[in-house]
Amino acid sequence: MKTIYTYEELSAFSRDIFKAIGCSGADAALATEVLLSADLRGVDSHGVARLSGYVRLWEAGRINSQPNIRVVHETPSTAVVDGDGGLGLVVAPFAMQVAMAKAENAGTGWVSVRNSNHYGIAGYHAMQALQKDMIGISMTNASPLVAPTFSKERLLGTNPICVAIPGGSEPAFVADMATTTAANGKLEILQRKKLPAPEGWIQDSEGKSTTDAHALKSGGALLPLGGTREQGSHKGYALGSIVDIFSAVLSGANYGPWVPPFPAYVPMPQNMPGKGIGHFFGAMRVDAFRTKEEFFRDMEQWIRRFRSSETVEGEEKVLIPGDPEREMEVIRRKEGIPLLPPVVEDLTALGEKFGCKL
Amino acid sequence: MKTIYTYEELSAFSRDIFKAIGCSGADAALATEVLLSADLRGVDSHGVARLSGYVRLWEAGRINSQPNIRVVHETPSTAVVDGDGGLGLVVAPFAMQVAMAKAENAGTGWVSVRNSNHYGIAGYHAMQALQKDMIGISMTNASPLVAPTFSKERLLGTNPICVAIPGGSEPAFVADMATTTAANGKLEILQRKKLPAPEGWIQDSEGKSTTDAHALKSGGALLPLGGTREQGSHKGYALGSIVDIFSAVLSGANYGPWVPPFPAYVPMPQNMPGKGIGHFFGAMRVDAFRTKEEFFRDMEQWIRRFRSSETVEGEEKVLIPGDPEREMEVIRRKEGIPLLPPVVEDLTALGEKFGCKL
Repeated sequence: MKTIYTYEELSAFSRDIFKAIGCSGADAALATEVLLSADLRGVDSHGVARLSGYVRLWEAGRINSQPNIRVVHETPSTAVVDGDGGLGLVVAPFAMQVAMAKAENAGTGWVSVRNSNHYGIAGYHAMQALQKDMIGISMTNASPLVAPTFSKERLLGTNPICVAIPGGSEPAFVADMATTTAANGKLEILQRKKLPAPEGWIQDSEGKSTTDAHALKSGGALLPLGGTREQGSHKGYALGSIVDIFSAVLSGANYGPWVPPFPAYVPMPQNMPGKGIGHFFGAMRVDAFRTKEEFFRDMEQWIRRFRSSETVEGEEKVLIPGDPEREMEVIRRKEGIPLLPPVVEDLTALGEKFGCKL
Repeated sequence: MKTIYTYEELSAFSRDIFKAIGCSGADAALATEVLLSADLRGVDSHGVARLSGYVRLWEAGRINSQPNIRVVHETPSTAVVDGDGGLGLVVAPFAMQVAMAKAENAGTGWVSVRNSNHYGIAGYHAMQALQKDMIGISMTNASPLVAPTFSKERLLGTNPICVAIPGGSEPAFVADMATTTAANGKLEILQRKKLPAPEGWIQDSEGKSTTDAHALKSGGALLPLGGTREQGSHKGYALGSIVDIFSAVLSGANYGPWVPPFPAYVPMPQNMPGKGIGHFFGAMRVDAFRTKEEFFRDMEQWIRRFRSSETVEGEEKVLIPGDPEREMEVIRRKEGIPLLPPVVEDLTALGEKFGCKL
């Protein structure tokens, strides 16, 4: 079985599938670019492996492939966008463009989004700002998998935050992180390999720390960044909460335990207070604070100083956030994107259903 | 020895001391209000116990008690403030007012500050926004005590972030946290009690995890939130870095290893790239996104749902960020503020030096 594909092969296939479910050519191309940016950057859990999941949401009537995405409220530096139930892969780029247009005029732009769906990796959206010498911020809520500190219940998603800061002549600083100890994708790898999870990643249905990588399936929960109270899990809980509130309470999306699930077979929550899932985006022009020359002189020195830090024994270098993903992208653009056999099978079946060739 | 003081007693004393070093009456009152907000909220490491430290910085010529604080650059939603070497306790409130004034007009306001000093607790400043139905954000860099993931060197401060979100008829959500596993103040408590530190809080001079609570004095470092790479310390490192860059690279303050120390006896770093220490503030009007009615309806439901979450055995309730500090303030306003005997001695000596009675 072929398990390594070029970016172009996967891109053509993904565009065909999105067009097959009714997306315009432009939307299919955009959704594909966002989706595959995850594969390029090595975040395999959020890339083309999810394509059939988006299609199943469309089949279940939970995604509108021809949405009327629009700004429903605004001030000089803010907006609320209603995604009309569209693909997050299309709604989020629209909202990020609004944030950047606000920043052109007002110095910064801040956009909260409702009525959207899963938006791929947080990093893609924040990084749009880099091309314009802006700092980009991206966050989204997600269906509940995470227990607040002291709670048995799953009330938060893995709620990622990305902050992308242009680096001048150095590569950009791009911190893209779930607000949990470990992203769900990392847990899935351990499950497949039948390995235990490290302490501090998950709790069981009674709220006790466990190394059972399958504990989520029996009522357990992922733990907020920090893992335990002593190690600062209340801080990860607070960060995930801030993402939830900025993404959904500011926009009118669903929050906390009411965020709709990604798997189409999971029933929707009862008594949902809002519309769809929520995102939050920010853009800040660096020259809204200092001249670009001054900013980049200091940012370059910041990056070089941290990168040249003396390492602990056994480690090669101190990384700047975004280094591993950038290095992975260089490799994968050249050598192709490896897919797991079950993913290839899933995509092949998807292609057959819609008459598209992988 | 008297070790419990009323807020009014400590406030009168602190105002007298700030006036004795040359502050105007208004600045002395403001600096006192900010400083003592830490004692009221139970953050004893950042309150009146630091008063003599500020005075020693003034004696060393590192604090200007009559600063000309001014906006040096602005757009409709941003500004850079130069603190002219003033007390952070006075510079930060000025900058937060600028952020809120911007938010009145543009929906949001974002202010980066250079040439400042230690600003007390992050929470005080962010919470100013609550009175105006705004979300408040406050962060500051600080002198280097924290090692990035894989680094032996101390390159970041404990760099706190506070996000304060108004709660309508519920108490506000106030997350005020160092971006380390544990704040330095918690370590100091263990040092005084001669107790070991939990794993994941500190590393020794070789970068190995240690439970020696005194390891910082022998070249060790605090660890970023997460503690170890496996537990996500690269996320805490990224968060502390974002605080550093927003506070200092955006403003022209010192960053990373060049941030000036709080203890006046510690020599200043060589080849400092900027001016003083840096802060960053944000204010977002909730009605720049939705009507206040809509926002508060959902925010109240958010808070109630999380507060009523089912707890793990042995825990009384799931806390909303800010709950413990708010409850502490009620107690301390009624029963007084307890000080450790060495703090009382230090303040008494300080009072004698300046002819002020504690």
